[in-house]
Amino acid sequence: MQVLNWSDLNGTERKAALARPDALIGADVGQSVTAILADVKARGDAALRAYTANFDGVDSVDMRVPVRDLKAAWDALNPDDKAAMELAKANITAFHTAQIPATIAVDVMDGVSLRREPRALNCVGLYVPGGTAPLVSTMMMLAIPASIAGVKRRVVTTPPPINDAILAAAYLCGVDEVYAVGGAQAIGALAYGTDTIPKVSKIFGPGNAYVATAKAMVSAAPGGPAIDLPAGPSEAMVYADDEASPVFVAADLLSQAEHDVMAQTVAIVRSQSFANKLLTEIERQITDLPRADIARAALSSGRILIASDDEQALSIINAYAPEHLILQTENAADLVASVREAGSVFVGPWTPESVGDYASGTNHTLPTYGAARAYSGVTTESFYTFISVQTLTRKGLEALGPAVERLANMEGLEAHRRAVSLRLESKTS
Amino acid sequence: MQVLNWSDLNGTERKAALARPDALIGADVGQSVTAILADVKARGDAALRAYTANFDGVDSVDMRVPVRDLKAAWDALNPDDKAAMELAKANITAFHTAQIPATIAVDVMDGVSLRREPRALNCVGLYVPGGTAPLVSTMMMLAIPASIAGVKRRVVTTPPPINDAILAAAYLCGVDEVYAVGGAQAIGALAYGTDTIPKVSKIFGPGNAYVATAKAMVSAAPGGPAIDLPAGPSEAMVYADDEASPVFVAADLLSQAEHDVMAQTVAIVRSQSFANKLLTEIERQITDLPRADIARAALSSGRILIASDDEQALSIINAYAPEHLILQTENAADLVASVREAGSVFVGPWTPESVGDYASGTNHTLPTYGAARAYSGVTTESFYTFISVQTLTRKGLEALGPAVERLANMEGLEAHRRAVSLRLESKTS
Repeated sequence: MQVLNWSDLNGTERKAALARPDALIGADVGQSVTAILADVKARGDAALRAYTANFDGVDSVDMRVPVRDLKAAWDALNPDDKAAMELAKANITAFHTAQIPATIAVDVMDGVSLRREPRALNCVGLYVPGGTAPLVSTMMMLAIPASIAGVKRRVVTTPPPINDAILAAAYLCGVDEVYAVGGAQAIGALAYGTDTIPKVSKIFGPGNAYVATAKAMVSAAPGGPAIDLPAGPSEAMVYADDEASPVFVAADLLSQAEHDVMAQTVAIVRSQSFANKLLTEIERQITDLPRADIARAALSSGRILIASDDEQALSIINAYAPEHLILQTENAADLVASVREAGSVFVGPWTPESVGDYASGTNHTLPTYGAARAYSGVTTESFYTFISVQTLTRKGLEALGPAVERLANMEGLEAHRRAVSLRLESKTS
Repeated sequence: MQVLNWSDLNGTERKAALARPDALIGADVGQSVTAILADVKARGDAALRAYTANFDGVDSVDMRVPVRDLKAAWDALNPDDKAAMELAKANITAFHTAQIPATIAVDVMDGVSLRREPRALNCVGLYVPGGTAPLVSTMMMLAIPASIAGVKRRVVTTPPPINDAILAAAYLCGVDEVYAVGGAQAIGALAYGTDTIPKVSKIFGPGNAYVATAKAMVSAAPGGPAIDLPAGPSEAMVYADDEASPVFVAADLLSQAEHDVMAQTVAIVRSQSFANKLLTEIERQITDLPRADIARAALSSGRILIASDDEQALSIINAYAPEHLILQTENAADLVASVREAGSVFVGPWTPESVGDYASGTNHTLPTYGAARAYSGVTTESFYTFISVQTLTRKGLEALGPAVERLANMEGLEAHRRAVSLRLESKTS
């Protein structure tokens, strides 16, 4: 990790120090995804089977996983794993239930009643990545809030061969519709529908560059599904003062770094001596990590920034807008209110990122690549739309109508004006 | 308008009857926008000036509108127009203030405290279209909620020459940053920033095909700004029973149709005789409309669908997912709960769409082209992100940690596990 003293840097150097890796998505990825999506749109299930055979090496005659396989996976799980998953489910459920939106109703004038009413989405797609780490946590983070919102149909796609732990998690979350399809082809299936996989109105979940690109493409097309978030490599920023434990801070940086060679790690510290301790501790902890190679590759682009005070540290945090922000300072709780741009914040020495990744109850589907400036992580509300409802009485229209007529007139929209005038002139009541 | 009896249609015919116009965005639009965005990114203000001269025929040495011009426009407004705008502002303010999100806090376990905290966006772009109808209402619908949320910087772009009514609306809403730039070039400026126009984190507002395409492109790029909604032609669906007034229903359809030749109008009625009355009434009202040609063009693709009962009507409504839904039935208020997919609903005979377009207080920036299935209209929350915050005590980590360790183990992420284990093993407290 490169160590930089923030006060010594000029504007350009500061920008460079907080830059994310450029050109996330190669042109070749874009071309492949365009071709895959077009093929899925044209050939449906046949295209899905062909890509699954080709990319995953699996002959998928039946893409849908039988419900009995989900139950069998759960039943086969060891009791301690079951208990861990059940605790995670309980916490995720508690926090996401508290987020269920209420109807908002206001009578702005006598006879002018306005409401904002939530509606659960009807049918959503939940993408659970496969790969080296079977993300049972992702299944829970998506399927549980969808269920709490009352989404009728939760359609899970995940690349084969599917790890039993993922099937068990589906069972625990009451998901019964799991399809063994991954990659851009799965996103195409959810966006357009095939004979086997239904078309959904919104697609959730992380994935590799192909999946992320496919999500961006289908959602940008007219009439395409919505998506939860734009996706980029995972990232963590830790702000630690001199009283923090270098052991804890190193552990948090390493838990980020082991995700992926592209994972971003940034530490903000208050002194060169703490930076030195941190580097030593990282080296000590990394040696016997199973994923040490991945972690080393990720840390090679990591940075340690020395800040002069809390104000400077906060300016770095808000300029970077990290996905995960870990505050290990004595005044960590006091700093939270000044954090404007971040996905999820972990406060104090006893709150490692991994608690939020799995089981504290917050959602781990979070904005990366600076998207925290404008996007939130997945919340229960992500599974709703909000409908405006207005009801006027005749008296209400008599009070409000003249203003509407004037404004329609200002905009030169005569039929808009008449929709009011004709009513006000009418004899009915 | 074509009249179709829903019960007589098969599945394919029903789909066709609810189809929106295809291929909204021509390839030529996509190519132009790509070139414009690249040029704005490369040349900044120089590119903006060139496109403004070329497309708008305006020599824009100073793109920023002086604040004194905003005040002057307001001061010059006639008192009745001022009063109408002030009433609209009061209602929009009342309804959007009621939508300010609260912090949600839950202690899911002893020592495990979770919060979801709202944060206002820092800097947003508000696009106000120019064209034949100066949309003073759009300025209010975007600038007022942004202000209520506490957004620090509201950057308005609108094509020159700017109508005085728009400048007056900016003044009324306390906006002081208005730039005379429109089209795809304005979206590029907001996305990338130029010497004059700041880079924003989210872009709001309607626009033509160039603007909509530019918004889709910049938001799909890695690190790009968020956008409020995908945009398509405006649309209204009216459901009227035999007791409804054909005069009112015709007026509502015409107020939609006068927007744009692409505007979509669909009426659901309960009898052929009502359909006939409606067609007669439309013909009667359209004759002396100033924008009759636009309305006729729009209505030529409009449809009147005859439904056998409320259930069938609701199935049509939810299949179409209209931007605006006007319910003129005796039981209109009872139907609302069964409307699952719509942008804004207007209930009963005294609630024409134009009240919501201008002054009832609901937001008129709404999902079109079926996007109501997954997107909401602009609400106060559109100007916030939500940050997750978790705080564990040592006791909390002792209770939760073992489950996190198990789950990390299931996912094969050893450093995630150790971030917990090293803490639990430590002597510090």
